[in-house]
Amino acid sequence: MEFKSKPDSLSIFAIKGIPAIQSGDNIGEIITRGMKRNNIILEENNVIVIAQKIISKSENRLISLSKINPTQEAIKIAKKANKDPRVVELILQESKSIIRVSDGVVIVEHRLGHVLANAGIDRSNIESDDTDEKVLLLPEDPNASAQKIRNYISKKINVNIGVLITDSIGRAWRLGTTGHALGSSGIKTLIDLRNNTVDLFERELQTTCIAWADQLAAAATLIMGESNEGIPVVIIKGIHTPSETDSINDLIRPKNEDLFR
Amino acid sequence: MEFKSKPDSLSIFAIKGIPAIQSGDNIGEIITRGMKRNNIILEENNVIVIAQKIISKSENRLISLSKINPTQEAIKIAKKANKDPRVVELILQESKSIIRVSDGVVIVEHRLGHVLANAGIDRSNIESDDTDEKVLLLPEDPNASAQKIRNYISKKINVNIGVLITDSIGRAWRLGTTGHALGSSGIKTLIDLRNNTVDLFERELQTTCIAWADQLAAAATLIMGESNEGIPVVIIKGIHTPSETDSINDLIRPKNEDLFR
Repeated sequence: MEFKSKPDSLSIFAIKGIPAIQSGDNIGEIITRGMKRNNIILEENNVIVIAQKIISKSENRLISLSKINPTQEAIKIAKKANKDPRVVELILQESKSIIRVSDGVVIVEHRLGHVLANAGIDRSNIESDDTDEKVLLLPEDPNASAQKIRNYISKKINVNIGVLITDSIGRAWRLGTTGHALGSSGIKTLIDLRNNTVDLFERELQTTCIAWADQLAAAATLIMGESNEGIPVVIIKGIHTPSETDSINDLIRPKNEDLFR
Repeated sequence: MEFKSKPDSLSIFAIKGIPAIQSGDNIGEIITRGMKRNNIILEENNVIVIAQKIISKSENRLISLSKINPTQEAIKIAKKANKDPRVVELILQESKSIIRVSDGVVIVEHRLGHVLANAGIDRSNIESDDTDEKVLLLPEDPNASAQKIRNYISKKINVNIGVLITDSIGRAWRLGTTGHALGSSGIKTLIDLRNNTVDLFERELQTTCIAWADQLAAAATLIMGESNEGIPVVIIKGIHTPSETDSINDLIRPKNEDLFR
């Protein structure tokens, strides 16, 4: 089993000097140039980890709030959440369902399946001018974005790599955010040990499945920044868990097994 | 601010060959020997990450189920959870409150404050003989254990290090476990950027506090194993976030801010 041949070490490297991303930018090309500039040589099964923010910017997911007309429902929820009704309107448009509303936060099931605050809509680090405030939505399809970038870079550099797209997401019972996997291509996402170990008694679920891609995302986020001086792309070396079949969807708990909605 | 001087890279190294831990073992001494054997030289501000399981074993937290007499409450919950009533009895003893009961899982607020499944009680990787099955409770006081180990190793090696004790814990809305911080000494646990950045509008909470120690734990768990061939101790190099005042308690969401109990 691939998981058993664990590496003795891993390393994570920042790609410094990634420029401010504009709509239409080729992220694969920008990363390739960035690696060259940082003297980072990609090897087989390295993982490129990318903050969702630059994917979103390249996909023109910046929305001018001045163009949003909130519905009555959005206005009602905005009052309860003490938020801008136009932002709430976008949260509703980006979500399948609302799970909780509280002061400053609307927790939703995002259309991509993730449960997260404010549909991942980000008001920070956005260059809004005084008259036209903009917010950034999550990428349209992070798995497709990851695959596109992977194809571009694999072709350029001729090694098999993995690509992971991450976001910093909060948790139900713990403070602070951690990096989570939003999209991937070519990497294991969930490692299920349940069929690979013999136990006298039923194993506890908590120790038998590993959210591998979320751990990669959290590790990468240690090197990425959260404020303006952020590093949106890092390379993980030393971890060998390629997969052509795993999906980020494997990490999302099915609704019928969810105890907290 | 220390957080702004982010490193360009980090590395995580396994300490191989840690022996099976027995009650009374000096974990600090065992790690010191392990580092020597693996030619790992500790440097200032390196972080030693230790799986809770070996701390618990050294603290004799192995409990024989044959000695446990479940209460009526435990028997009732065990029926609902489809679990061994003696294990449920221990879960109750280790917890402040029960949050959810479902098939195979009792989600509790542990006496240490963490919300987790089955009070972190682990039936896997325990050497039980046929007639006396044993389970392993979480360490008595992981912060104290971390501090003790830190003091021992700092004294031996004469560098200032951090120590982190981790467990693999599940999440409300995502499948699979990730490494979480259970105890620490000498490291930053939560990095709060809210007072350090200027924003035109209120910042979303989700992007302003970073669960630093949980990210360290998740990163370390990539190198640790989950099954029998596990690596219970790893060293993180390259991350410089010492703190003498932070506590793992900073990572626990206060009950009055909790939307999911």
